Amino acid sequence: MKTPQGFVFSAVEAAVKKPGRKDLALIYSESECVMAGMFTLNKVKAAPVRLDMQKIRSGKGNAVVVNSGNANACTGVRGMDDAVAMSELTASALGLKPSAVYVCSTGVIGTPMPMDRIKAKIPELADKANRHSFLDVATAIMTTDTFAKTSHRQLTVDGKKITISGVCKGAGMISPNMATMLCFIVTDASVQKAALQSALKNAVNRSFNLITIDGDMSTNDTVLAMANGAAENIPITLKSPSYPKFESALSTMVYELSKMIVKDGEGATKLIEINIKNAKNEKEGAKAAFAIANSMLVKTAFYGNDANWGRIMAAIGRAGIDIKEDRIDIFINGVKVVSRGTTNGKDAEANRKLRTDEVKLVVDLKLAKNSTRVLTCDFSEDYVRINAEYRT
Amino acid sequence: MKTPQGFVFSAVEAAVKKPGRKDLALIYSESECVMAGMFTLNKVKAAPVRLDMQKIRSGKGNAVVVNSGNANACTGVRGMDDAVAMSELTASALGLKPSAVYVCSTGVIGTPMPMDRIKAKIPELADKANRHSFLDVATAIMTTDTFAKTSHRQLTVDGKKITISGVCKGAGMISPNMATMLCFIVTDASVQKAALQSALKNAVNRSFNLITIDGDMSTNDTVLAMANGAAENIPITLKSPSYPKFESALSTMVYELSKMIVKDGEGATKLIEINIKNAKNEKEGAKAAFAIANSMLVKTAFYGNDANWGRIMAAIGRAGIDIKEDRIDIFINGVKVVSRGTTNGKDAEANRKLRTDEVKLVVDLKLAKNSTRVLTCDFSEDYVRINAEYRT
Repeated sequence: MKTPQGFVFSAVEAAVKKPGRKDLALIYSESECVMAGMFTLNKVKAAPVRLDMQKIRSGKGNAVVVNSGNANACTGVRGMDDAVAMSELTASALGLKPSAVYVCSTGVIGTPMPMDRIKAKIPELADKANRHSFLDVATAIMTTDTFAKTSHRQLTVDGKKITISGVCKGAGMISPNMATMLCFIVTDASVQKAALQSALKNAVNRSFNLITIDGDMSTNDTVLAMANGAAENIPITLKSPSYPKFESALSTMVYELSKMIVKDGEGATKLIEINIKNAKNEKEGAKAAFAIANSMLVKTAFYGNDANWGRIMAAIGRAGIDIKEDRIDIFINGVKVVSRGTTNGKDAEANRKLRTDEVKLVVDLKLAKNSTRVLTCDFSEDYVRINAEYRT
Repeated sequence: MKTPQGFVFSAVEAAVKKPGRKDLALIYSESECVMAGMFTLNKVKAAPVRLDMQKIRSGKGNAVVVNSGNANACTGVRGMDDAVAMSELTASALGLKPSAVYVCSTGVIGTPMPMDRIKAKIPELADKANRHSFLDVATAIMTTDTFAKTSHRQLTVDGKKITISGVCKGAGMISPNMATMLCFIVTDASVQKAALQSALKNAVNRSFNLITIDGDMSTNDTVLAMANGAAENIPITLKSPSYPKFESALSTMVYELSKMIVKDGEGATKLIEINIKNAKNEKEGAKAAFAIANSMLVKTAFYGNDANWGRIMAAIGRAGIDIKEDRIDIFINGVKVVSRGTTNGKDAEANRKLRTDEVKLVVDLKLAKNSTRVLTCDFSEDYVRINAEYRT
C-alpha cells in the first residue's frame, strides 16, 4: 500500500471496544506538518473535537491519536481532562509538545473514557509505529463499519512525486456537514496552510457534505489533513499553478472515501446516487436531493426493489423549493418512470432495473441550469437491528 | 356510538383496495353544513386536495366522498377529471349540487383511479347511508392502519346538547403540517364559518401539527369539519362566550385522534411523548422536539429499550437552536439520565423503565420559559417490511 514519505502508523488493542479488536491508533510524522481540519457543526461537540479546534489554529502538528469504542462526548470536565491526557501522554511517548498531538474519538456517547487502559497502551502504540500499518489504522477506527476504508492518489508536482493517502470510518449517523465520521489525510506534499485548508474545504464540500445515511449528525466528526513536505516540491500556495492539480487529486480521493462510507451505511444493500437536474439554484437542488435521500419511504422502497416514484414526488413536494409539478421527469437506472409529473407506464421495467446494488436516480425539475449530486443508501431491517442493539 | 344529529354515513367495497375490504365511504348531512378545512402544505397536491381547496372557499357543503387504496396524486389532468367525476356522481346520487360534495383519496400515488369500479358503487353508497355506520367510515379509510380511529365529545351550549365526532386515518408518511392523514369531523353545533375555521386551525396546530412518524409529509392530507346546526344552539361566533368551550372540546377530541395515529404508526411498538422544557422560544422548542422525534438513531434505541441519551444529545445539538450543553437535563420515564449535560449514572434503571409501550421523554434546556410537546413512535423492522413491500 502506497503511503507518503515520512509518515508512520500503528494500532493496538486497548480494550475500549470488545476484546479482539484494535481500537487505538496513531498517525505520526517526525517532521512537523502543515495541518488543516474540518469539524462537526453539531453544537454538542465531543471533548477531542473542542480540543482539536483549539490546536488547529496553529496550523501545525505532528501526530494524531485516535480511539474507537468511546466518543468521549457529553462527558463533562472529565472528558476534556481525558482528551488532554491522551494528547500529553502521546506527546511524551513521541518526544513532542502536547500542542503537536491531535486527539480523535468515535463510539458510544456519554460513557467516561477507560483512561487506565488507554494510558497503559500509549507507549506500545508509539514504539510500534512503522510505514506499513496504514491499513491497521483504518481497521482500528471502525465502529459498525464492515470494511476498512482507505484511498490513495499520486501526482507529480514540479517533477516531484507526491502521494496523498486517506483513511476514514463512517457507518451510522451520517449526514451533511459531515457524519460520524473520522477522516485522516496524510501527504508528503509541501503545501502552505491556506492552500491546504482551502483544498480540504472544497474536497469535503464536494464529498462528505453531499452524503447522508440517516439524517443524523454526529458530535465527533473530524477531518484532519497533514502535509509534511517530505516530497520537497516547491510549496503549493493558493496561487501556485500546481494548486488546482493538488486540489483535484485530494477531492477525487476524498469523494472515493465518502462513497465507501455510504456503501457501508448501516444495513445498506444499495448505493443510491441522486442527481437533481435543472433546479432553480444550487441550494434548492440540494434541498430536493436531501429530502429524497432522507425519506424513509423512498429508502425502504428502493430496498424492496420498488420503483415507487410517488414517494419521490412527495419528498420533492415537501422539500420547500419551487417546482412545477407538471414539468418533472424522473429516471430510475435509466428508465423514465415519470414524464411531466405523472406516470410513464414503466414501473415494472424500473422495478426489474432496481435488482442491483447501485441505483442512479435522476430528477429533472426543468426550471434552470443547476445540477446537484447526493449519495445515500437504502434502508433495511438491519439498520434497525444494528441500532436497537448497539449498546445492549 | 354517539354521532351528531342529522348526519348519515356509509361504506362499500369498490375494489380499489384488495378484495374483502371496504374502500369507499360517504359522510352526508341533508341540511347544509358550515365547512372548514385544512390541507397538506406539500407542493405536490393530489387532485382531490386541489379540488377541495376550491370548494372550501364557499364555507359550505353537505357531503364528503372518500376512497382508500388510491391517492389520486400525480395523476395529471385525468386525476382532476376523476376527482370532479366522483364529486358529480355523488352529488347526483344525493340530489345535491356538485359544489356541495367534497372528495378525498388516500393510498398509492401515481396510479390512475379505477373509476369504473367507483362509479358503479356510488348509487349503493348513497342508498345505504344511515346514522349507525360511522365506524364503517373509519374502517373504509384505513390503509396500513391496524385499527379504526374515532373519537367523540359532547358538550352543552345554551342548554342544547352538542355532539362532535371525528374519524381519521394515518399510519405512515406522518409529519407536521399534517400527515398522510385524513380526518373528518362532524358536529350538530351551529357554528359560524370563521369560528369553525379558527377552532379547527387551533385544534390541528395543537395535535396533527405536533406529531411525526417518519418525517415524510403526504400529498393528500386533509382535515374537514362539518357543522350542520341541528342542535339548534345560538350560532357560535368567535366572540361567543361558548366559543372557548367549543374549541376546547374540538381540540381535545382532535388531540385524541392524533395520538391514535402515532400509536398506530407503521411498525410502532411504543408511543413517545417528547417534552422540551425551557427552550429559548416556542419555535426552538419545536425544532429540538422534531430533531429528536425524527432521529432514526433515537427511535431505534427506544425500540431496543436502550436509554441511549447520547443520541438525544446529538439530535439536540444538530437541531439548529441555542443550547448550553452543560445545563441540559434529560428524563426518560421519570429517570434522570442526564444531569447538566452528562451522565447521571442511571442508564440501567432507565433501560428497565423503557420496557413499556409508552415513553415520556423530558428535555430541560434551562434557557427560558417555553414548553413544547411532540408525539412520535419508535421505529422497528416492521416499518421497513411494510414499506419495502407496500406495492409488491
